[in-house]
Amino acid sequence: MTAAATPVYFWEDFAPGSVREFGGLKVDKEAVLRFASEFDPQPFHLDEEAAKQSLFGGLAASGWHTCAMVMRMMCDNYLLKAASLGSPGIEKLQWLKPVYPGDVLRVRMTVLEARPMNSKPHVGLVRSQWEALATRADGNEEVVLRMEGWGMFRRREVSEAAA
Amino acid sequence: MTAAATPVYFWEDFAPGSVREFGGLKVDKEAVLRFASEFDPQPFHLDEEAAKQSLFGGLAASGWHTCAMVMRMMCDNYLLKAASLGSPGIEKLQWLKPVYPGDVLRVRMTVLEARPMNSKPHVGLVRSQWEALATRADGNEEVVLRMEGWGMFRRREVSEAAA
Repeated sequence: MTAAATPVYFWEDFAPGSVREFGGLKVDKEAVLRFASEFDPQPFHLDEEAAKQSLFGGLAASGWHTCAMVMRMMCDNYLLKAASLGSPGIEKLQWLKPVYPGDVLRVRMTVLEARPMNSKPHVGLVRSQWEALATRADGNEEVVLRMEGWGMFRRREVSEAAA
Repeated sequence: MTAAATPVYFWEDFAPGSVREFGGLKVDKEAVLRFASEFDPQPFHLDEEAAKQSLFGGLAASGWHTCAMVMRMMCDNYLLKAASLGSPGIEKLQWLKPVYPGDVLRVRMTVLEARPMNSKPHVGLVRSQWEALATRADGNEEVVLRMEGWGMFRRREVSEAAA
């Protein structure tokens, strides 16, 4: 569960315009209720009947739970194999549609911009868009979350020059 | 753990310029490790030694865990007593400083803007800034997270007119 001792991906591997698609995480009802109980106990995340009366139309995952599930898929697909240094933040996080138990989530990541970090020459910044797509019980797929944000990665060239 | 049957707060109660301060949640190391294991198993969130070598300088909570803890404090302070209808999204989420086990977190919420929702006349939108402040082991307090985002609330006047 920890990053590889020798990273496979460095800053140079996130080229603007590149697209990665990954995931396939089934949203589990017990997990939805557990996350909501701990962090977001609003009725539409905890109670089937209250959720039916809400704008969600049915029991829906906390938006923060969806973010956390997207993060897990990012870790499993590339972050744990990358020289990742964390993230300074997110821009334009949109919860576009509810996420329901039984949905299967996947992620489409598009690199928008990459530049070296002025204050730390061995670090590069990558700005990406992540979209979470939910396959519903009826087989339709919808974009349920969209966000843009920054990641920090060690630079391969600088790492190798220093080695 | 569910919202009051009769909400105390409606859209009209979130006036631009108003400030609420609340919270006091101690960051628990086991909770940090549990969240990271499930959602963000990067070494600096799971392993003390790896974290010391990272930009964080020590074991730090996942940024998504910090968001979730802020959400819990929002629920306990006002959301569970409010005619809350969820949120369309967040702008400018910044993870400014690491959050460490033992920190005590509180939230400062400032309402920036409020307007009725064009497409749903019984709903009002509120744009707020939330800052999370961490009191460290040495007693110093720092802003560790800042975000702006939207909440949707039922309008009192419209609710009462319809009753």
